[in-house]
Amino acid sequence: MTTPSGLDDLLTLLRFPSVSTKPEHREDVRACAVWLVNKLGAIGLTASLHETEGHPVVLARNEHVPGRRTVMIYGHYDVQPPEPLEEWASPAFEPTIRDGRIFCRGATDNKGQLMAHLRGLEETLAANGSLPVNLIFLIEGEEEIGSPNLKPFLEKHREELKCDMVAISDTGMVAPGVGTFTYGLRGIACMEVRVKGPSIDLHSGIFGGAVMNPNTAVARLAATLHDSEGRVAIAGFYDDVRPLQDWERIVWAGLGDSSAETQMLTGVPELFGEPGYTDMERRWGRPTAEINGIGGGYQGAGSKTVIPREAMMKLSFRLVPGQDPEKIMALAEAHLQHYCPKGVKLEILSGHTGMPYLMDPHSAFGTAAQKALTQTFGGQIALIREGGSIPIVQAFKDVLGVETLLLGLALPDCQAHAPNENFPVASYEAGVMLNKHLLQELATP
Amino acid sequence: MTTPSGLDDLLTLLRFPSVSTKPEHREDVRACAVWLVNKLGAIGLTASLHETEGHPVVLARNEHVPGRRTVMIYGHYDVQPPEPLEEWASPAFEPTIRDGRIFCRGATDNKGQLMAHLRGLEETLAANGSLPVNLIFLIEGEEEIGSPNLKPFLEKHREELKCDMVAISDTGMVAPGVGTFTYGLRGIACMEVRVKGPSIDLHSGIFGGAVMNPNTAVARLAATLHDSEGRVAIAGFYDDVRPLQDWERIVWAGLGDSSAETQMLTGVPELFGEPGYTDMERRWGRPTAEINGIGGGYQGAGSKTVIPREAMMKLSFRLVPGQDPEKIMALAEAHLQHYCPKGVKLEILSGHTGMPYLMDPHSAFGTAAQKALTQTFGGQIALIREGGSIPIVQAFKDVLGVETLLLGLALPDCQAHAPNENFPVASYEAGVMLNKHLLQELATP
Repeated sequence: MTTPSGLDDLLTLLRFPSVSTKPEHREDVRACAVWLVNKLGAIGLTASLHETEGHPVVLARNEHVPGRRTVMIYGHYDVQPPEPLEEWASPAFEPTIRDGRIFCRGATDNKGQLMAHLRGLEETLAANGSLPVNLIFLIEGEEEIGSPNLKPFLEKHREELKCDMVAISDTGMVAPGVGTFTYGLRGIACMEVRVKGPSIDLHSGIFGGAVMNPNTAVARLAATLHDSEGRVAIAGFYDDVRPLQDWERIVWAGLGDSSAETQMLTGVPELFGEPGYTDMERRWGRPTAEINGIGGGYQGAGSKTVIPREAMMKLSFRLVPGQDPEKIMALAEAHLQHYCPKGVKLEILSGHTGMPYLMDPHSAFGTAAQKALTQTFGGQIALIREGGSIPIVQAFKDVLGVETLLLGLALPDCQAHAPNENFPVASYEAGVMLNKHLLQELATP
Repeated sequence: MTTPSGLDDLLTLLRFPSVSTKPEHREDVRACAVWLVNKLGAIGLTASLHETEGHPVVLARNEHVPGRRTVMIYGHYDVQPPEPLEEWASPAFEPTIRDGRIFCRGATDNKGQLMAHLRGLEETLAANGSLPVNLIFLIEGEEEIGSPNLKPFLEKHREELKCDMVAISDTGMVAPGVGTFTYGLRGIACMEVRVKGPSIDLHSGIFGGAVMNPNTAVARLAATLHDSEGRVAIAGFYDDVRPLQDWERIVWAGLGDSSAETQMLTGVPELFGEPGYTDMERRWGRPTAEINGIGGGYQGAGSKTVIPREAMMKLSFRLVPGQDPEKIMALAEAHLQHYCPKGVKLEILSGHTGMPYLMDPHSAFGTAAQKALTQTFGGQIALIREGGSIPIVQAFKDVLGVETLLLGLALPDCQAHAPNENFPVASYEAGVMLNKHLLQELATP
């Protein structure tokens, strides 16, 4: 069982505001990495901090014994921005335990799950003096911004990072207590679209009616992204999509209809999505176009009768196996240019991308991972894909040539990326156990 | 001619950040009003400050002589918000003279024009010891937020505010040096539309594809407001519009084609507006729907893959004679509810409204005003309407039963409501002269 000191370490880790996307948090991100290096060294691993073009990578390993399996555990210590701050019931970077859950930015994504692995290693080392496998623990600080420097890092350290597989706890469980193995992830392609009209902000009384308003233009563009039923309306968007396989649709349907839970978790008046697919299929197996941000003109209190010089939107596309992020970006850019209203110009900035991922859940390592899940949670293991993106999983395949085992602990209501993110103390404790079972199962030839 | 001390007073007035829409500037607005009361008293008028539900009204008068014309001069001492601050070449509330122009928020709209009247009165009083008319100088602090408390103020003080006409310098000149008389104004109706979807911000990987994104919904709604050619697409929107009269179209065409100037002033790649109308007609004589602000989700640096719980837009409709703001608001609300996408709910907040205005430029007072303009500027006087809204003009008609003479001094490139608002020192000096000629012309029976 987890001791109070194990939980204390997690709370300490959570207090670092390690927001990787914000330049003003650069030193906080580094301090978080330094703390991890010290902690990993203290439990008996050889730990080191590696500079990159962005935030540092933390690496730790035991003494490798020839002939044993080499297991890489991956995690990330960076977090999403906490805004909107006013919607947090307790401060975003002050971990607070209520009703058995730890509330803090990063509690689930990914510090809680990362620390469960670390604590599992610590307990095993304290009890046995050694681990049953050759371990590489790789923790990055740029997952939330698309891991721009991790692939170069893998390439540079290809030899010392050689391993048999990677294990990651950064995905979800279908329900509390139901061990869940994720064999696929959606990819991602992000872009920012800036719509530029007048050279200065204009008085909408004096000039209204004579110029295209960039707010109107960005809205008209945004409105072209979907048809009225929810399909993405970009020409060619679905061309390369690998259709859902029959067995997947059957297995997922066997998990039950998730509609009511999704509606409850999101609080929407009604669900809305691509016709012909279930809620799970829409979220795990179908691609999307989402407007993550839109903005232009006056958004403060009261009114300001302005026609702004510029408006913007931030788009992200979630991609499924078969789709290529670069191709989707090119299709989207062509679509936006085609529909760009007269009287404004577009500036399109490409953001981060990540390939979709799919592995065979019935492979040897997939089976071992499911055994460890059964030993931890008991019962039937859920075989799922997930809607989120972990671009680095594709990088592990490309650079190191290995598959990734996704054994996530996030609950459906963890509120990752949103205010009041949380992680149950019980999930943390299960994660500690899972780490021990997993290393044992993977050690077995 | 204007003395340095006259200009000093204007610079002092400009330094007050009297932004009426922002609660944090409440005391600055009041300080500005108090300064005006003191100044008006110092030049020999009886000045007073009147509380309202919002910002105070400043009133000044000379000793009224029975049988003389009573002239009300109206101005406003409040200003638009200065944002975006980073686009100002000099601080927004530090008046700076460059190339003969005073740069400051409020320089043209309306402090420069207001102070020209004040200085004209000061010089006349200093030279003659009296004015040729019974004067009421009414200066409000809520014009930029739709003058919500001025109509009640007029109603409450109906007797002491009795006058023969109102004169306002808060409109524009068609070109530098061309005296311009404005006989019509567009009205306005403002609303804020809030689009509410999920009860919390969602991770676009986990839930993307299964819910209507409020950013998408607000964009789809915004895109329904116009047809692809620029006409407002709200059913019934044009039903009550009084068509432009032939004589107006001829007189305006005689001022030349304003397209090139509008494109130069706005800096747009190309003009865009309702088919079948010239640039002037679009801006002065046709109604519009503009999105003054749109916003939702993450607008900061980098990316955040979120589906926000809410998005919003701020709309304003510019209205022309025949249209009723309340009816237009009702039509717009019905339109938005009709087109509201599934999966989100709307909350619509009505903002301020103002009736469109039209007077006969060939009436006795209209003719007197044009004479004063000729004496000040020489040459042919331009007869125009304007696209902006001065809701209080309709209130003067409704409550006091009088017409308003609009003799504005704003130049086409004054950048009212935008960064780097400016007012030429020469325009200020002309305004001082105009005040003297105007009172003399209006005094003549």
